[in-house]
Amino acid sequence: MNYFAAPVRDIRFVLEELLAFGSLSLPGFEEASPDLVEAVLEEAARLAGEVWAPLNASGDRQGCTRRDDGSVTLPDGFIQAYQAYAEGGWNGIGVAEALGGQGLPEVVASAVQEMLHGANMALGLCPMLTAGAIEALAHHGSEEQKATYLPKLVEGIWTGTMNLTEPQAGSDLSKVRTRAVPQGDGSYRLFGQKIYITWGEHDAAENIIHLVLARKPDAPEGNKGISLFLVPKFLVGSDGSLGERNDVVCASIEHKLGIHGSPTCTLSFGEGEGAIGYLVGEEGRGLNHMFTMMNEARHKVGIQGIGVAERACQHAFAYALDRTQGRSPRSGRSDCTISDHLDVRRMLLSMRARTDALRALALYCAAQLDLARHAADETERAAAQARVDVLIPVVKSFSTDQAVEIASLGIQVHGGMGFIEETGAAQLLRDARIAPIYEGTNGIQALDLAGRKLQRDGGAALASLIDDVEATAAALGDNAELAVLGESLAGGAADLRAAMAAVLAAGADPESGADAVQAFATPFLNLAGHVLCAWQMGQAALKASAAIANGRDEPGRPDPFYRAKQQSADYAIRQWLPVGRAQRAVIEAGMTSLAAFDAAAH
Amino acid sequence: MNYFAAPVRDIRFVLEELLAFGSLSLPGFEEASPDLVEAVLEEAARLAGEVWAPLNASGDRQGCTRRDDGSVTLPDGFIQAYQAYAEGGWNGIGVAEALGGQGLPEVVASAVQEMLHGANMALGLCPMLTAGAIEALAHHGSEEQKATYLPKLVEGIWTGTMNLTEPQAGSDLSKVRTRAVPQGDGSYRLFGQKIYITWGEHDAAENIIHLVLARKPDAPEGNKGISLFLVPKFLVGSDGSLGERNDVVCASIEHKLGIHGSPTCTLSFGEGEGAIGYLVGEEGRGLNHMFTMMNEARHKVGIQGIGVAERACQHAFAYALDRTQGRSPRSGRSDCTISDHLDVRRMLLSMRARTDALRALALYCAAQLDLARHAADETERAAAQARVDVLIPVVKSFSTDQAVEIASLGIQVHGGMGFIEETGAAQLLRDARIAPIYEGTNGIQALDLAGRKLQRDGGAALASLIDDVEATAAALGDNAELAVLGESLAGGAADLRAAMAAVLAAGADPESGADAVQAFATPFLNLAGHVLCAWQMGQAALKASAAIANGRDEPGRPDPFYRAKQQSADYAIRQWLPVGRAQRAVIEAGMTSLAAFDAAAH
Repeated sequence: MNYFAAPVRDIRFVLEELLAFGSLSLPGFEEASPDLVEAVLEEAARLAGEVWAPLNASGDRQGCTRRDDGSVTLPDGFIQAYQAYAEGGWNGIGVAEALGGQGLPEVVASAVQEMLHGANMALGLCPMLTAGAIEALAHHGSEEQKATYLPKLVEGIWTGTMNLTEPQAGSDLSKVRTRAVPQGDGSYRLFGQKIYITWGEHDAAENIIHLVLARKPDAPEGNKGISLFLVPKFLVGSDGSLGERNDVVCASIEHKLGIHGSPTCTLSFGEGEGAIGYLVGEEGRGLNHMFTMMNEARHKVGIQGIGVAERACQHAFAYALDRTQGRSPRSGRSDCTISDHLDVRRMLLSMRARTDALRALALYCAAQLDLARHAADETERAAAQARVDVLIPVVKSFSTDQAVEIASLGIQVHGGMGFIEETGAAQLLRDARIAPIYEGTNGIQALDLAGRKLQRDGGAALASLIDDVEATAAALGDNAELAVLGESLAGGAADLRAAMAAVLAAGADPESGADAVQAFATPFLNLAGHVLCAWQMGQAALKASAAIANGRDEPGRPDPFYRAKQQSADYAIRQWLPVGRAQRAVIEAGMTSLAAFDAAAH
Repeated sequence: MNYFAAPVRDIRFVLEELLAFGSLSLPGFEEASPDLVEAVLEEAARLAGEVWAPLNASGDRQGCTRRDDGSVTLPDGFIQAYQAYAEGGWNGIGVAEALGGQGLPEVVASAVQEMLHGANMALGLCPMLTAGAIEALAHHGSEEQKATYLPKLVEGIWTGTMNLTEPQAGSDLSKVRTRAVPQGDGSYRLFGQKIYITWGEHDAAENIIHLVLARKPDAPEGNKGISLFLVPKFLVGSDGSLGERNDVVCASIEHKLGIHGSPTCTLSFGEGEGAIGYLVGEEGRGLNHMFTMMNEARHKVGIQGIGVAERACQHAFAYALDRTQGRSPRSGRSDCTISDHLDVRRMLLSMRARTDALRALALYCAAQLDLARHAADETERAAAQARVDVLIPVVKSFSTDQAVEIASLGIQVHGGMGFIEETGAAQLLRDARIAPIYEGTNGIQALDLAGRKLQRDGGAALASLIDDVEATAAALGDNAELAVLGESLAGGAADLRAAMAAVLAAGADPESGADAVQAFATPFLNLAGHVLCAWQMGQAALKASAAIANGRDEPGRPDPFYRAKQQSADYAIRQWLPVGRAQRAVIEAGMTSLAAFDAAAH
């Protein structure tokens, strides 16, 4: 039962039909033909399904172990699975060719990431963090740093980490205390402790490149005193050879609810003479440099949620199609499979429709990322970037919140079996539960959307997305069969527009501005997520209907795939969207009680 | 941080102010004065907070162990904690005095159960199952069986279990295969395997009384062939002395997501000569007898969810009032506690308001149970029973679904700490996750409500509850400050009435009847839960306002308790109810896609 097949056809439906990937033809991506992409997806699916997925449950059971010398032992098979990934060239698929990567579009790289996270989220975190380090160095590293570190990171022979959090500095990174003392030779010695460092220590790679937020002794307090430093586990010679072990050690690993196969480390820098580090980018711009890479990392966390949601779907469907119980209310057959019971179907379709919708929106966002970077026209690039800015907090938060719910529903479909660990459904909930927390909690994402992104352009980027939602609603309205979906989607667009106006008005109020926006932020993001996902499923309904009408689903050889997509769309827009639309009422009711809230009295 | 104080004042608010407990004066409960009840609650709070709660985390970490001889070792301290409970007389507080109990009302017993489950849900399951056995024997046992088994069960010296599930017989118990072979002397020998038997084997009690569904060899197939048998772990002599070990052994215990301190056993009956058992009640009426006790067990599972939700609230509030991070948007103070951030307040208030509301509804249901049993007037008893029948599936499902969400929000409030097991927040989610599954999945509860309870009286009992909701809405409307709550509540009542009409109409359609009702059942229960909980919080708002107006919250000595209850009510009715109200749209959109759903195509 603990089986995972990467959803290649579902992903191709999004890439080829919803995003019309073949016709993107971006500068720099001429070689990424649909055939090549198909081959990449098929190969990635093989790696995910055959190499990574079988280690998901065993990695969870075994977990990671820290030895007394500070080294960390991964679960059995993880080293080999990681190396198969690195040797297959997967680590560089989304990295520019100039940096040694394969330069495939982000939308393809994202699809591959989804497969790998679905197969084994704990293992998938390792390259996810490395990608962040590559991004930071590519943007902010010196030429020498790039030459020394990037090739091995891109190959995946070395891995990377992000060292932000300290016990007193979580969501508020301005409180970072780790010190970086200049040595006079351009290098620094770092002293301090970082917590929650994902894959902070392990033996799957020759070296680990830590990117660390720290302060020079004379730095000002607050954000402006924070700089970004590169601290390798093993020092690297000018010829690229590995030298001495640096003064950074894993002091402990966390005992977590999930992702047991991913070592979450407390790292001590400078228990001896200090960990040797090098400034990356400009002094005092560390937070800024880190956020460059966090933006994309946030998109990847959303993708991760979708991977786990997909696996939860597959588990639940497989169980429901196999487990017999009760009498079918339709056929009257006794011992029907539980997939015959409508309440079980409701759960299955809810899981599937949401996963389809989240994937479509996340890959749409990835395609906009590609446009923002590579479109020939500057106006087009700017418009795409504006959409990306609005979409990323939605993709991160909404996908991960929903992934938790989908994984929980997956347990429910299994009944009593769902609560038994060996079934595998429970692990998915445990693993998924971190995603709404890390890379900026979902609450922080909502503030980013409603507070920063929306206020700074007066809602222009989101308004333009809502225009597109309305266009899709109108197209649905032109199709007699789909008109009812168009009506619901148009209502959702109107709700989102009204809620946006309310949030903008609240933000403009000099009295309560930031406060009111903060109170509205999460309901607003939730509404936006529902409407934008439903929009993508409106597109899916149009494409599926056209495919069926165009004979790709002929009476003689019906293709149930498009019927299934129609059902997903119908559910997402008529059953799921109304729940999101309720957030408009929540926002319009105001949040007066929050300002007067006295937690100590409750 | 891993601290629990039973919510005595919140419970007293419900009992004394919402349910006007002091004025109930039911026959048989004359001695249950408010003073006595207060003393009972205070004592129970001490047991919960001081004895049971400290073992919650250690019990989770240590779990249960099965030894090779089939015996099961409980986590350290569990035996002593259980014995403190039994010796304190707590096991009998809700049991009639005629049966050796203390005969306190169900509403008081439920309040005590909530405290104990909040303190330690895994341990709380043991007496919960014993209560079911007491109930079944009291209703269906022979006089001899009652005399032999009830006193020890009521004292808690022996514990009880419910043996229903077999691998092929879960939600569909008609498939039970365990055989009961008559021995000619009135006894039986049982052969078969039962799974998921809560507290099926342990060493906290002298004996375990298993109630087992099984079939005689000549019994017909299906439900009518199933009888209920009593199988003691140790045979009991006519003088009450313990005799030989019976042929029932624990074959294995499950490795579960949560409630690790509760041994979930596979029991083998008759690996040797057969487990000696005795028929309870009528032959062929086993399912019926079991459901007598399941109805109350379902209420208790709802209560259990509320206990865990309460503990999640306490964890989250304590953390949010202690953890400093960021700058307060109101005071501008840096290093404010995170309870100062409105998005965190939103989570806290959402948790608290929902927990308050669920508790109020569950205790209202318990009070109706008391009326149904003890009201002097037969019409009043029947009306209360009709309400109980409708409310129990709502209390079971809605409280447990919400408890999972509340526990998950509790993790979110903790940020990264929430994902670390030692914080304790994660355990609450893991523990809570079973409650929507056992004692009839929440989907089964929804079918019970929408399919059976609603259809059989044409919605009369629920309609009468909705009348009361409307009366509360009108009372809110008469208070200028609360009128906005009244409006929202009246809207919720109208939605529930309309949805009920839709579900009744669907059920009456001879074509699609059962199918359509099944498709609507869960959304309908969800709507009913929101509206009925909001109703209770409307009552809470009225009582809190009156208390404040009556000077119980004087300017000089303000009592923040009532202000907090006003906030809870405001949140529940204006922020939470709208989400539930969306289920009306879900139902009215129809569930056409479910009937055509082809799981294999997705």
